[in-house]
Amino acid sequence: MLRDEQRARVAVILVRARNPNNIGAVARAMHGFGFLDLRLVSDYPIALEDARSAVDASEILASAQTFATVADAIRGCRLVVGTTAVGERRREHRLETPASGAASIVAALSSGTVALLFGSEKTGLNNEELSFCDWLMTVPMHPTPGMRHASMNLGQAVAVCLYELIRDTPLAFEVPASPAAQAQDLERVTALLREVLLLSGYADHRASFAEPAFLRRTIHRLQLGQSDARRWIGVLRRILWKLNA
Amino acid sequence: MLRDEQRARVAVILVRARNPNNIGAVARAMHGFGFLDLRLVSDYPIALEDARSAVDASEILASAQTFATVADAIRGCRLVVGTTAVGERRREHRLETPASGAASIVAALSSGTVALLFGSEKTGLNNEELSFCDWLMTVPMHPTPGMRHASMNLGQAVAVCLYELIRDTPLAFEVPASPAAQAQDLERVTALLREVLLLSGYADHRASFAEPAFLRRTIHRLQLGQSDARRWIGVLRRILWKLNA
Repeated sequence: MLRDEQRARVAVILVRARNPNNIGAVARAMHGFGFLDLRLVSDYPIALEDARSAVDASEILASAQTFATVADAIRGCRLVVGTTAVGERRREHRLETPASGAASIVAALSSGTVALLFGSEKTGLNNEELSFCDWLMTVPMHPTPGMRHASMNLGQAVAVCLYELIRDTPLAFEVPASPAAQAQDLERVTALLREVLLLSGYADHRASFAEPAFLRRTIHRLQLGQSDARRWIGVLRRILWKLNA
Repeated sequence: MLRDEQRARVAVILVRARNPNNIGAVARAMHGFGFLDLRLVSDYPIALEDARSAVDASEILASAQTFATVADAIRGCRLVVGTTAVGERRREHRLETPASGAASIVAALSSGTVALLFGSEKTGLNNEELSFCDWLMTVPMHPTPGMRHASMNLGQAVAVCLYELIRDTPLAFEVPASPAAQAQDLERVTALLREVLLLSGYADHRASFAEPAFLRRTIHRLQLGQSDARRWIGVLRRILWKLNA
């Protein structure tokens, strides 16, 4: 699990992203997973106030830094990982999936800043930008015969890559395990249901279902919780009472 | 790894999604990961032709079915998993993260269709919709003190949940491992570099770096590939030739 100080050392770098809504979606994913450091590489100012898709992530957008070049944006980073919708041409780099690469990233975060580079939606990272990367990461896409290589929407690609870094985080709260029914409760349900089957006449023609061992297995398969079992006991008692009236 | 026939049995069900662009983003994520069956629950027709964010996923949108109720949409499914940006109130269901829940989903896909339910962006799934679910899945979000519980953008939530089902898919092509340099290549680099250090006068004042064992360790740490090692041998030879001229 990622410690807070490791999380703070992840720099998400968007290279030539043009659509403010995509940048907003990236900021929202970062916010949701607790990442803070967003950097943009762009040779013109980006209208981040248009990034309505950011929702709660306004702080991340407000503190995002813009750099003119990739070299400037990665200054101070000890590991630079590029992302690519890899085609046939990218073969000069070590290539990992998010699942296979996450451990290297988490290890590097113990000793410094790690940059995750994402290219523009249209073209991805170009060869010059890729040359700054120590290795590349690609999300395994499903090959579609006859179509160009599938690529991900920028916000989704960032979400999946960041998700992989936090995926073993336990939930922030405990879901109290509801107690399972105890043997005597299940025995009571079985006995009451059998009485109902006999009294209602169901068992006259389907006697095998009313056979105690068969019925007991049927009830045990339901994996009743304690409170549900007690509710069913009440229901069956009420039915018996009516049947006996 | 998910087999094709398992992949075909995943039904992504969007309940009361209103924004065609969000639906398009969901379709694009499905397409990228090889899922096909998109179902919408809506009490009015949705203008799917506006879903420009779908990119290559037009087939998925074209075959998406719309249902009036959740009960109609999940007909035929053997497991129904709801997703939730879980707050404090959802405690009646078994709750899993995508990482902890994926194995159950994959197992169920061997014997039938699994529905993944996603609620509207604004409100998520309501209690009635949740009551159709066998269990719930939530992506672990980073708690932000003093803020409402973070939720994910719909397209990103679907992308992360589907990604978890395919995350162990190997890349569709092999990245040929470039052969590592062999010992004799590294020895040659070491010897040539030592000659350069001596001839250029660098070693006059920093003799320890030219010490063969030290230099050899430095070269071995570079983990050179075979072709890179041979390139460096050429470079060093050329420098020596010039130094000797």
